[in-house]
Amino acid sequence: MVLLEKLNWRYATKAMNGTKVAQNKIDTIIEAASMAPTSSGLQPFEIMVITNQELKEKIRAIGWDQSVITDCSHLLVFAAWDTYTPERINKMFDLTNTIRGFKNEGWENYRQMLLSSYPQRDAEVNFNHAARQAYIAFSQAIAAAAFEEVDSTPMEGFDADALDEILNLREKGLRSCVILPLGYRDTENDWLVNLTKVRKSKEDLVTVFE
Amino acid sequence: MVLLEKLNWRYATKAMNGTKVAQNKIDTIIEAASMAPTSSGLQPFEIMVITNQELKEKIRAIGWDQSVITDCSHLLVFAAWDTYTPERINKMFDLTNTIRGFKNEGWENYRQMLLSSYPQRDAEVNFNHAARQAYIAFSQAIAAAAFEEVDSTPMEGFDADALDEILNLREKGLRSCVILPLGYRDTENDWLVNLTKVRKSKEDLVTVFE
Repeated sequence: MVLLEKLNWRYATKAMNGTKVAQNKIDTIIEAASMAPTSSGLQPFEIMVITNQELKEKIRAIGWDQSVITDCSHLLVFAAWDTYTPERINKMFDLTNTIRGFKNEGWENYRQMLLSSYPQRDAEVNFNHAARQAYIAFSQAIAAAAFEEVDSTPMEGFDADALDEILNLREKGLRSCVILPLGYRDTENDWLVNLTKVRKSKEDLVTVFE
Repeated sequence: MVLLEKLNWRYATKAMNGTKVAQNKIDTIIEAASMAPTSSGLQPFEIMVITNQELKEKIRAIGWDQSVITDCSHLLVFAAWDTYTPERINKMFDLTNTIRGFKNEGWENYRQMLLSSYPQRDAEVNFNHAARQAYIAFSQAIAAAAFEEVDSTPMEGFDADALDEILNLREKGLRSCVILPLGYRDTENDWLVNLTKVRKSKEDLVTVFE
């Protein structure tokens, strides 16, 4: 299967060569992320696309000095909602009604159920839930990048609070959760490029209940 | 792009027709999930594949009585490690050394760093971290299912504690985090199948820093 071949081609690139990724490929990767399913369709995340070199340098400084942060073409930052608020929930339900052109009683009841439970929960619980949705989108972006033969580096190794400050995310009600440099592998300088991909055995991964 | 077309074809299927999905397609979907990148390569999750009808009935009862749980062909349950332990971390690092056939000092130092930080953290923090990795795999499974034109229903709407009990996950050091019925859409009985997919505008999703 073609997708599987591409997912096998993918690896967490440790050195990039600075080559720019074409805009249409970036658009495709973002589009794939946006197509990801999210809980109740709330899409509780945003994506920062960074090509500014000074900004990349600042982020590298709070990202374990990893070279891909500056040598990538585009740096994607996935930032999740810091909590669920009535405004945010209503906005997404209203958008659904607008796009679909009608109101549905079941859907409106569902809206009320979310309004009566999500905003009342601890912000940290809500952020953790929103972050999981961001990860679904992040993963679809990784798959789409691989499909386009664009290299990527899934990265959690950065100071999220510092990144939030650099990008003023908290003021927008967002918190960074994971970043994805996109670019092209520097095969001569990447220690990981030729190493075998390690996956646990299917026996350790899968349990079948027939 | 073909992948994008398939991701657009995908929707959170609300009614399935009971048709079995061929085993080779299930294998491909599982393989895609296993290819997902995970933090430090720890792969801190397992996948339960359920075709047993009695078990599906039990799960439907704790899953908001959603019909896809029983009418799907295969029900995937993504379960993350309940915490990080030295044994689990060592097992994955040892596996890497075995598969790659050598020990690397940097990699061994990295192992020590994880051993000196992860197991000491609160189990809930570790589970939340592991769950995010499970979501990356879950998302790749969704993308692969779409690519194979197998329908799926990403679902968080179930009683996770009850599911853990049904599948004895806690005894295995696992906690369920998300489930994915796989099968084929029942176009006549699915209220969602013909509704427009709702996504926020690119302006609301993306911020560019050039």
